[in-house]
Amino acid sequence: MKKTEIFDSTLRDGAQGEGISFSVSDKLKIAESLDRFGVDYIEAGNPFSNPKDAEFFRQAEKMHFDNAKLVAFGSTIRKNTEPEDDESVAALLSAGTKHIVVFGKAWDLHVDCILGTTLEENLKMISSTICYLRSKGRTVFFDAEHFFDGYKANPAYALEVIKIAEKAGAEVIVLCDTNGGSFPDEISRSVKEARKAVRTTLGIHCHNDTGCADANTIAAVKAGVSHIQGTFTGMGERCGNAALSTVIPDLQLKLGYNIVSPEKLRTLTKTARFINEVANIRLPRNLPYIGNSAFAHKGGMHADGVAKNSKTFEHIDPSLVGNKRNFLLSEVSGRSAVLSKLHAFDDTLTKSSCETKQITEKMKELENDGFQFEAAAASFELLVRKELGKFTQHFEIDHYRIISSMDSLDGQAFTEKANAIVKVRVGDKYEITADEGEGPVNAMDKALRKALEVFYPELKKMHLVDFKVRVVASSDSTAAVTRVLIESTDGENTWTTVGASRDIINASVIALKDSIEYMLRDN
Amino acid sequence: MKKTEIFDSTLRDGAQGEGISFSVSDKLKIAESLDRFGVDYIEAGNPFSNPKDAEFFRQAEKMHFDNAKLVAFGSTIRKNTEPEDDESVAALLSAGTKHIVVFGKAWDLHVDCILGTTLEENLKMISSTICYLRSKGRTVFFDAEHFFDGYKANPAYALEVIKIAEKAGAEVIVLCDTNGGSFPDEISRSVKEARKAVRTTLGIHCHNDTGCADANTIAAVKAGVSHIQGTFTGMGERCGNAALSTVIPDLQLKLGYNIVSPEKLRTLTKTARFINEVANIRLPRNLPYIGNSAFAHKGGMHADGVAKNSKTFEHIDPSLVGNKRNFLLSEVSGRSAVLSKLHAFDDTLTKSSCETKQITEKMKELENDGFQFEAAAASFELLVRKELGKFTQHFEIDHYRIISSMDSLDGQAFTEKANAIVKVRVGDKYEITADEGEGPVNAMDKALRKALEVFYPELKKMHLVDFKVRVVASSDSTAAVTRVLIESTDGENTWTTVGASRDIINASVIALKDSIEYMLRDN
Repeated sequence: MKKTEIFDSTLRDGAQGEGISFSVSDKLKIAESLDRFGVDYIEAGNPFSNPKDAEFFRQAEKMHFDNAKLVAFGSTIRKNTEPEDDESVAALLSAGTKHIVVFGKAWDLHVDCILGTTLEENLKMISSTICYLRSKGRTVFFDAEHFFDGYKANPAYALEVIKIAEKAGAEVIVLCDTNGGSFPDEISRSVKEARKAVRTTLGIHCHNDTGCADANTIAAVKAGVSHIQGTFTGMGERCGNAALSTVIPDLQLKLGYNIVSPEKLRTLTKTARFINEVANIRLPRNLPYIGNSAFAHKGGMHADGVAKNSKTFEHIDPSLVGNKRNFLLSEVSGRSAVLSKLHAFDDTLTKSSCETKQITEKMKELENDGFQFEAAAASFELLVRKELGKFTQHFEIDHYRIISSMDSLDGQAFTEKANAIVKVRVGDKYEITADEGEGPVNAMDKALRKALEVFYPELKKMHLVDFKVRVVASSDSTAAVTRVLIESTDGENTWTTVGASRDIINASVIALKDSIEYMLRDN
Repeated sequence: MKKTEIFDSTLRDGAQGEGISFSVSDKLKIAESLDRFGVDYIEAGNPFSNPKDAEFFRQAEKMHFDNAKLVAFGSTIRKNTEPEDDESVAALLSAGTKHIVVFGKAWDLHVDCILGTTLEENLKMISSTICYLRSKGRTVFFDAEHFFDGYKANPAYALEVIKIAEKAGAEVIVLCDTNGGSFPDEISRSVKEARKAVRTTLGIHCHNDTGCADANTIAAVKAGVSHIQGTFTGMGERCGNAALSTVIPDLQLKLGYNIVSPEKLRTLTKTARFINEVANIRLPRNLPYIGNSAFAHKGGMHADGVAKNSKTFEHIDPSLVGNKRNFLLSEVSGRSAVLSKLHAFDDTLTKSSCETKQITEKMKELENDGFQFEAAAASFELLVRKELGKFTQHFEIDHYRIISSMDSLDGQAFTEKANAIVKVRVGDKYEITADEGEGPVNAMDKALRKALEVFYPELKKMHLVDFKVRVVASSDSTAAVTRVLIESTDGENTWTTVGASRDIINASVIALKDSIEYMLRDN
């Protein structure tokens, strides 16, 4: 079995991504989950450039990691200084980690244009930084920044840089495609040259500006690299970094590498989703292996094929990475996708059963009106129950009134809280109540729940997690159809419901009603 | 200059992506924009599997395309039928396109397990379908489905399939990585073998299940393919397809291919964003070349470096693809971004002018509250005018009341039209009126305009074109901040304004007010 080390930089390079801002506690949570998954190294920040990162290292000293080693990241010394006098180097040492990454320039353009120094001085800066940190008992990884662009511009110098790093005692030399502009065959050729120039373990660090970060990482491994840097789900500056959640299963499931145990690999999807949850970054649905859509089949023929033999339309078994197969319901998908969901209720139904046809028709009709069931499985289940006569209605809304208002005083506008009055009927009992909220939907949500909790106290456990609004056909401007998706939870399970209407309030109420009916459904 | 054909399948394979549902009018709009950008072929749907696609082809007959040819997509005949009697083939012909794509099986597993027929019969099905369509005057492209998996399993048979397609007269033979499980070096080797087996133009069609769709497409081109299939922004079943918005600039800007004119390439970002807008799919920020973050620099050193020499941290000049550089989070760079916009009003302003600082501050404050000015240039202009003392307020809303209501009768729910009362002040005159509409925003829009037209009859020319709602921070569910973007037109010009608030009504009113103030502004 071939081996390679995994070095995760979600907390350092990932934090450079647009819209990403980790608190110290976010970082601690993510570090724990990376360790649990089984990465070898966690690059956690730059203690010199960022006081938050310095604080992280202080707090992390108390933590215990089973697999991973924490790594601090920083630059070489500045020109014309000595390591003893350099603040950045001092900050790196103060992080207290055994492992340190130092980055230095491998592209002559950068030495000249950014550092404003000589090629000779740059080599000295790299060498003396590594030697000094080693003299303090640290293990040093050297990031050869812009190695691939440097190799294209001045191959002799780029190779000299990594030779100097080797001589100074770097444990790993990481070849970086910092601008992300390379292609796999270029990476492969340059890595092979680097492999000839030094004996030290080589690493790879790729960015995705040509859309090739994952492919470049794999090309580097095939060319002799055995240390992989990336961020767990690919977040990072500009177009992001190589995604470990893609590269790890690529290598382990398809290319004969042994990186983590099969049990750990089954936690890949969970780990990735947890990290993006903490980062508050939406995980793209179509991310390989771990995305919600990664094993979603919509084409009728594909859905049929997978039902016959999953190998026909899936390159791997989704359970190996802890993900799930999903047959999507849509006008293209046809009756067999609907059927696979119907079997949960009645496994005697077939494609040509009357009920299958009816439900398919009903669904198409509602989708024409702006509903969409692909992402709203709970609403779809209620629809099926209704058509199969297995639905008990738990309540009815007799009426509601919602008032939104604004007043101004001395030219200053004051928006008041929205008010909702709602009257519900449960059996032959009525309950009318009111509540106020931030906007009409929030007010209605609160009032409706308040009225129903009188009859169904278990609703107290339930709350809304997410609320999404989409204008479906926007040619009619404010009178267009609005689709609302609501995600609810009872603390254990999570479900999504949908509503659509030309009136956003009405669309929201439809989705709210479904979310409550779903919670109350009989099992 | 090296050449290659571009074949866009956004409307066919893209529509297989989760959450994607095109109306006929969406499809027509996207086809127009693809033609304008300059793709060679537009695969627009499967007229047999989908009545909406059949309708599209009927309507598209009236359209004129400058560059692109429309293509209909469908399968070979079923086993044991003749082309004359096959419904799918009849539907393909009825689409009325000169070009037709036929897909057939190139993997023995599929022939056996999915078609349930012999390898011999499969070859006959492919051959007779192509021959028949050619006899009807059509140009036929053959999609060799699962070619790469087929080549791994049974190379002789996979090659036999493409030889049969060549013999039957296919114009292009497209090698498909249908399950998306391949890597660039595998693709390269198999393409070279295919290249030896046939003389016909070869095409490539990749999916992204290993994260390598773009790299695989480029590897195929380097190995001898000259027809590229993909979807414009990578949407498609499961993990999506190769993204033409990545592959086209990769080839043209970095690998010496001539695909579209430099002027057309500058519309790449605009075209991609338009397509996802119509598809109502969020464009991932970090998509190479066209994403909002593709040239966003956050690290202080990177931002400084780009300011010195953009080549140091950018692999290409963003203007070549019509995208923009964006400096994040840095006070200094933030100001230079604002400054470039301020110069439209006052070109004596500098980075350190008091006004520049004030406006930057104000903008950051509003963006913290959920506003976003990137897509709302009209609101930004009003903000600048206000800060520079160049804004005349044309009206004030004294108050509004909006009532949304629903009643039920015999268990049936009746949503009533929303009612809005609004009182405005213009100078020392007041006007109070009311109107009703589909939902609260529509009612408010109508009432506000009605009141203001008394003073400003020119507002009769203006109307709303588009209305978008996005929940910005969704952790608080229905009480989260809602951002509303409103696009308005006076028939000649179009402008976009923004509003944000925890109350969707209030957010909409802010954007509506701005849109009217913008129309009334002094020039």
